[in-house]
Amino acid sequence: MPGDSAEENPASAPAKEESKTDDKPKEPKEMKAVVLTGFGGLKMLKVQSKPQPTPGEGEVLIAVKACGVNFLDLMLRQGVTDNPPKTPVIMGYECAGTIEAIGEKTEGFSVGDNVIALKECHCWAELASIPAKYVYKIPEGMTFHDAAAIAMNYLTAYIILFDIGNLRSGQSILAHSIGGGVGQAIIQLTKTVENVTLYGTASAHKHESLKPNVTHLFDHGVDYAQEIRKLSPEGVDIVLDCLCGDYTNKGISLLRPMGRYILFGTSSVVTGETKSFFSFAKSWWQVDKISPLKLYDDNKFLAGFQLRQLLFRENQHEYVRQLMDKLFKLYTDGTIKPVIDQVASFEDIAEAMQRLHDRKNIGKIILDPTIQPKEKTKNEAEAEDRAKSDSEPEESTKSETEPEESIDSDSEPEEISPPDTEPEEIIKPDVKPTEIAKSDTKPEAKPKPADAEAAAPADAAPAATADAATEEPKAEETPAEGEAEKTEEEAPAPAE
Amino acid sequence: MPGDSAEENPASAPAKEESKTDDKPKEPKEMKAVVLTGFGGLKMLKVQSKPQPTPGEGEVLIAVKACGVNFLDLMLRQGVTDNPPKTPVIMGYECAGTIEAIGEKTEGFSVGDNVIALKECHCWAELASIPAKYVYKIPEGMTFHDAAAIAMNYLTAYIILFDIGNLRSGQSILAHSIGGGVGQAIIQLTKTVENVTLYGTASAHKHESLKPNVTHLFDHGVDYAQEIRKLSPEGVDIVLDCLCGDYTNKGISLLRPMGRYILFGTSSVVTGETKSFFSFAKSWWQVDKISPLKLYDDNKFLAGFQLRQLLFRENQHEYVRQLMDKLFKLYTDGTIKPVIDQVASFEDIAEAMQRLHDRKNIGKIILDPTIQPKEKTKNEAEAEDRAKSDSEPEESTKSETEPEESIDSDSEPEEISPPDTEPEEIIKPDVKPTEIAKSDTKPEAKPKPADAEAAAPADAAPAATADAATEEPKAEETPAEGEAEKTEEEAPAPAE
Repeated sequence: MPGDSAEENPASAPAKEESKTDDKPKEPKEMKAVVLTGFGGLKMLKVQSKPQPTPGEGEVLIAVKACGVNFLDLMLRQGVTDNPPKTPVIMGYECAGTIEAIGEKTEGFSVGDNVIALKECHCWAELASIPAKYVYKIPEGMTFHDAAAIAMNYLTAYIILFDIGNLRSGQSILAHSIGGGVGQAIIQLTKTVENVTLYGTASAHKHESLKPNVTHLFDHGVDYAQEIRKLSPEGVDIVLDCLCGDYTNKGISLLRPMGRYILFGTSSVVTGETKSFFSFAKSWWQVDKISPLKLYDDNKFLAGFQLRQLLFRENQHEYVRQLMDKLFKLYTDGTIKPVIDQVASFEDIAEAMQRLHDRKNIGKIILDPTIQPKEKTKNEAEAEDRAKSDSEPEESTKSETEPEESIDSDSEPEEISPPDTEPEEIIKPDVKPTEIAKSDTKPEAKPKPADAEAAAPADAAPAATADAATEEPKAEETPAEGEAEKTEEEAPAPAE
Repeated sequence: MPGDSAEENPASAPAKEESKTDDKPKEPKEMKAVVLTGFGGLKMLKVQSKPQPTPGEGEVLIAVKACGVNFLDLMLRQGVTDNPPKTPVIMGYECAGTIEAIGEKTEGFSVGDNVIALKECHCWAELASIPAKYVYKIPEGMTFHDAAAIAMNYLTAYIILFDIGNLRSGQSILAHSIGGGVGQAIIQLTKTVENVTLYGTASAHKHESLKPNVTHLFDHGVDYAQEIRKLSPEGVDIVLDCLCGDYTNKGISLLRPMGRYILFGTSSVVTGETKSFFSFAKSWWQVDKISPLKLYDDNKFLAGFQLRQLLFRENQHEYVRQLMDKLFKLYTDGTIKPVIDQVASFEDIAEAMQRLHDRKNIGKIILDPTIQPKEKTKNEAEAEDRAKSDSEPEESTKSETEPEESIDSDSEPEEISPPDTEPEEIIKPDVKPTEIAKSDTKPEAKPKPADAEAAAPADAAPAATADAATEEPKAEETPAEGEAEKTEEEAPAPAE
């Protein structure tokens, strides 16, 4: 596949400024891409110059304007997905942009079409060549950022709510990690059905912004099962679980008659910045096997769902295309509108992924290869200086606002040794969450209360230089990495 | 509950003729009922005189005109259902008739309403007192026989196809035992969705009559899984399994991506006339437990469904009432019309149950307390005489037309000793399947080819007296019982 075999070539990295403002292919036929150089922590992420792909048979070449960041990317980075690709690899499962070229025997698309596309890796680049069966023309009026925020999250939410969950009016749902990208999609799609009771779990700092749209919110730390039993003694109709582990058994036990438990993620296996065999194995051990005869006795249903599996292993792209059309209609008529947590440059990928890992995001994190890396404000520069001088990592205060989950508290992360890395190209976060725009259409919108709360310990923010350039080598001991290492020893709340 | 504690009282049995033609309560306040005197074989079934129930608070008293016979009744008779009731007990889970009296604090019904009702036992009687929450007014133009044929079977089929199976156009279904009551309901309801491929298993002798309505039919004896793989290499969307045991694992393996396996019966545990602990345990052992993580990897769903559990343990009567209304609309507009295999008198219950056990029925078997026990033809009387004289049981030829299922062939039935029975009241079958009407509206309609085929060994038919009276003691060694005992040692095809 184009780009797969490309080698690192730091010397030919594009000039700083040109690479941000020019959507057309560069003269030397290279492009900027977010590359995973090996499985592990944030330092495995690098923005590199890579040969531009050319569209193969049945493929289209997309000039990428927006990419979606998913928890799946975090799991891939740590090497805990099924059949992970060989590294180095260009990351990313979804991108939106404009078709720039069309491969042979490719029908249904024209140069200039605005599209969203899904692919197993290779999406986080200025150009992506993607089989047409995974490419969808977006409707008039849909922004690229919205398109990239809709694809994986809303497809997943739609399928688990309607095609598997068979949601009906008057029913009740428990959805974990309701504040994340899929969670926000669940909230909006659930509103298309009358009189649904929505129970959600989310980190405490997100409750304020989620409250208007979720019937009952629970922090991950509380015994949500007991609370739900008080409110719905019979249990709930649908449990949407992206966490797995102990959440699975609890979820199944919470089902009312004819209730359905749907596992669509296993993010509780991620307990630190890098792969932990211990938490991985524990999650599998914790999940009880169940006899169909038990389901027969109890009138219960179990289901598992993975969009990635469905599209790329099981070849169900036609089914997915039908659903994408439905989602586009819902977008056009105003029923759905993705909540975008932040739009980050490629160079800000490490901070963006750490934000996802720390469950700070409310809604979707988008990468935009056409925007500049963020510049710090005067306050941030001062905060950074303070942080440098007292070396107090931000995480020490974060743990107070993010209660620990018992299933995570005893995990022992086993970091995989970085295979090849000198940090010459690693991108450091250079802004704090307080700066993060909540919408692509209003990049300077003031942060929501939850964000302000999450970012409260501003004087312990990670350090970064004021220079927006990102290709310069940085010292390994910057607070950004210190923060990541600290995180591994803590127990983050489950994924959102 | 009225009727539960009533004792046997053969001496006060109603006079033969009056009991068949009079729907009103008898002078001595007694009624005819089909009583299970203990768990076991056909001889445990007796038509007895029982005190008439009076409707309790929230109940209605129904003058019964039709009762449904289900495979569940067979399992109850053998004592292999969950939490079986104490014997003696009036059998039957569904009946249709006219409301004759209304208990205190019972709303929504009037005397004279025509209704269908569900209850855990107590339905096979001339009068049944049933909680109003399980009673449904039937629409104008629906016969009692149709009502009794619709209730359990169509509710089950509707729920598993649409509410659990979420059937969509273009999908494929594998339904086992497609020739039975639920199977016929599945056939008809499936037709409301466009372009569905319906795979069905059924005994060979039913194929001729099922062919026009089932895309591909398989005998239970063939390797249907392999055949389906040839026709649908990806597998099927929905597996509807009323058999369990090895069929469960095969069914799950046959699912295509996003496919759902639904267990709604366990009739493969019935391998003889009476309870077999061996086949019971084997069925449980055969069913593999499954991890939700496996479902997550494969995009598959598992579900179990039991209407009895849903209504009587899980209290979901309001949900069931909504569905019953939908079914009534489908009946009224002609979309569904139950296929009735035969309408039998209470006195013919043993033959009716044996027919169900032997998988000879195509569609629903109905009991009608208002009709006369069947009288034999001259040929039948002769056949009976021959059978008496040469004591050649019918079963010796039956096994040639009903191929044995491999999973059943090594079962060792362990008959439970009858607790209390002298056969003074047992009802003997006195007609052969050739006489069985295929429709309640045309009781004299000529039998379908499949029936004629099944009844071919007419000269070995069970003996019975020409007398229509049923309350007289009969000798234990009649061929009817000999047939039943023989059956235990054989391996019938799975239930339909």
